Amino acid sequence: MKKVLPGRVEIIAVGTELLGSHFVDTNSLYLSARLKELGWTVVFKTVVGDRPERLRLRLGEALRRTDLVVVTGGLGPTRDDVTTSAVARTLGRKRRLDKSVLGAIESRLRSRGIPLSSGSKKQAYIVEGAKVLPNRAGTAPGQWLTIGGKQVILLPGPPHELKTICEDNIWAVLMKKRRGFFVRRVLKTTGLPESTVEARVADLYPKRGDPGVTVLAYPGQIEIHLEAFSAVSRVQAARKLRRLNLGLVRRLKDCVFSQDGKTLEEVVGGLLRRLKKTLAVAESCSGGLIGHRLTNVPGSSAYFLEGVIAYHNAAKIDLSYVPARTIERHGAVSPQTALAMARGIRRRARSDFGLAVTGIAGPSGGTPDKPIGLVFVALAWRGGAEVRENLFLGTRDRIKIQSAQKALDMLRRRLLLEVRAVRRGQVL
Amino acid sequence: MKKVLPGRVEIIAVGTELLGSHFVDTNSLYLSARLKELGWTVVFKTVVGDRPERLRLRLGEALRRTDLVVVTGGLGPTRDDVTTSAVARTLGRKRRLDKSVLGAIESRLRSRGIPLSSGSKKQAYIVEGAKVLPNRAGTAPGQWLTIGGKQVILLPGPPHELKTICEDNIWAVLMKKRRGFFVRRVLKTTGLPESTVEARVADLYPKRGDPGVTVLAYPGQIEIHLEAFSAVSRVQAARKLRRLNLGLVRRLKDCVFSQDGKTLEEVVGGLLRRLKKTLAVAESCSGGLIGHRLTNVPGSSAYFLEGVIAYHNAAKIDLSYVPARTIERHGAVSPQTALAMARGIRRRARSDFGLAVTGIAGPSGGTPDKPIGLVFVALAWRGGAEVRENLFLGTRDRIKIQSAQKALDMLRRRLLLEVRAVRRGQVL
Repeated sequence: MKKVLPGRVEIIAVGTELLGSHFVDTNSLYLSARLKELGWTVVFKTVVGDRPERLRLRLGEALRRTDLVVVTGGLGPTRDDVTTSAVARTLGRKRRLDKSVLGAIESRLRSRGIPLSSGSKKQAYIVEGAKVLPNRAGTAPGQWLTIGGKQVILLPGPPHELKTICEDNIWAVLMKKRRGFFVRRVLKTTGLPESTVEARVADLYPKRGDPGVTVLAYPGQIEIHLEAFSAVSRVQAARKLRRLNLGLVRRLKDCVFSQDGKTLEEVVGGLLRRLKKTLAVAESCSGGLIGHRLTNVPGSSAYFLEGVIAYHNAAKIDLSYVPARTIERHGAVSPQTALAMARGIRRRARSDFGLAVTGIAGPSGGTPDKPIGLVFVALAWRGGAEVRENLFLGTRDRIKIQSAQKALDMLRRRLLLEVRAVRRGQVL
Repeated sequence: MKKVLPGRVEIIAVGTELLGSHFVDTNSLYLSARLKELGWTVVFKTVVGDRPERLRLRLGEALRRTDLVVVTGGLGPTRDDVTTSAVARTLGRKRRLDKSVLGAIESRLRSRGIPLSSGSKKQAYIVEGAKVLPNRAGTAPGQWLTIGGKQVILLPGPPHELKTICEDNIWAVLMKKRRGFFVRRVLKTTGLPESTVEARVADLYPKRGDPGVTVLAYPGQIEIHLEAFSAVSRVQAARKLRRLNLGLVRRLKDCVFSQDGKTLEEVVGGLLRRLKKTLAVAESCSGGLIGHRLTNVPGSSAYFLEGVIAYHNAAKIDLSYVPARTIERHGAVSPQTALAMARGIRRRARSDFGLAVTGIAGPSGGTPDKPIGLVFVALAWRGGAEVRENLFLGTRDRIKIQSAQKALDMLRRRLLLEVRAVRRGQVL
């Protein structure tokens, strides 16, 4: 038999609808977060349909290798709610009718003028030996079983019922048995591909996995998730994390744009606010995505003045003041046009910064000279401007996302220079 | 040993991040949908961390009781990507370096000027005997193993890579071994809340659950998903579905904007193309989201001329030709300003339609007179214009989404009128 490691959790979600193409089990996100804070680690998550034999199989396996099994769902009043009976059979126990639970169900239904059905009565059956976890938010109570040092907790599937039962009956009890202290942090980076990020920092990852490191890749954004654990204190956990965090930032430098969960548009917004500067944007192939992201941030009207989506050449000329000759001579997708758009929108909006994107998002419109994914990003400010050429890979939507990301990052890096200059008392 | 049932699938998602509190495995939704169409049923879903011994345990169990095991994730270039080696060990096989995969990885990285790291090279190692499934969207190929009549498929975790590999290499092969006929259809509606949709159609839902009906609610969009199965033929499955589908459309009428999976922006784009009409957009509180959605559609440059994000009043006046007096007299959030924006952007862009949104997305800026969520949407065309007042509930992002949805739907309904008029030989 496998040795059981302490503090290991398996979450089993019961429900055929969770095996289809519409719904995912999100209760486990909540459970995982709260359990982790108390020093428990989710090591497996499983979804099984409303089939008692499959639930029994998985429950048996879970009990062999974890200390705590949380079963969610399958406690409802209908025929396909099979959790209580399947758990009882797996543990070789009987079910018993709990009078006080039945009373609570009856009075809950009565208050809404609903008669007690045989299904609702079924919800008053409890696995023998289980502690009842009252449910203020619904009819099915939770159940808590202890079997030879192991714990099994049964919870109803509706998220608000599950949370209510946990808050009322579970976290305080587990707190007394807490197994340690957990601290987490997320470093978000942009400007480097995943493999380069890894090559720069992989030697810093702790060999023994503490702090734990998880790298997640999105278009134009690589995130490093850190988690540190201490059996002793939160301070000790934080200290472990801080050392690794510092090492990572030292290697990745300004590619790290956020260490506190903030999005790139929030970081850019924060820097603009701090410098009391304003922004206007001229977008071609990004099609409004930069404006959309900037305006997702509450209070962005303080620094974001306006944007134009200059999709046609006539719009580039009219809206962002690009000279017709520039487009004629160099094409709409060119560094010259990008620069003219950035300078033009800045002049039009009377903003401190003008940010512009022009490129070919595909799937058509590419040429050997100017392939799909060729995107110029330009930034203009008082007395200066810069433009960058990019070749992004992937589908239309990924090219749009990377274009917007690159543009926002270009602005962020310029704003960082200005913040540092201000700090040194210089004027850039 | 347990008898293996035919057509049973287990999906194992690998990744410690999927056990935490931030991410759920969504690849399984896509896999489940496509597998279902081919007559395969997902009976278990499992999530394991980046720990080879736990993956091996679960893979062994999965092989004992299902016919097809799909392992997603853990094929990346980093140290914690352990799928290939864990699978090889579970099956008692070696790994081999695949020269052609290595070549593909090298050339992909070279095209982006990235040197080959040892991590990327690791991705060229394949379980012995596996068929390589080329990956056009990334570096890690998929792998397909057959072991004593059972199938094991390994796929990378990033969704677009996983989908690309499946479309290129998997569905056509499984099609040949299909176990039945599945037909699905999605009716997308807008303009009615979920409870109203349900009240209108719930009596049409089949009692025995075939076709199956699932209702999904998004901000501004209620979808009805229908699924019918036949062991005999596609025609039989389709017939069952068609009857229900017709009944639903008869009840919901023009609120149904799509029956073929198309998004609202695709439907609007199709109508504009058909009528050979053009569009320009002036956005305030939707902040670029309408432009972003319109330009997500390939070929949208044929009808979408330009957009302006008129966030500040000065921008509304300058960019969308709103008379300063209109804003002074009625406020920026008013039917008059919305109409002026729609007419102004139409004039500026010389487009057939001008679409405009102005409102209060929050979380601040609301007043008792003009609360958060108050949004005016206006549409202008040759010889006419209309404006609608809306009060949307929810957070900033939900108000933005609903505003964009309402604007696109207003345009769709006008375009439908024109299409019908053209069909009748009228001129509107």
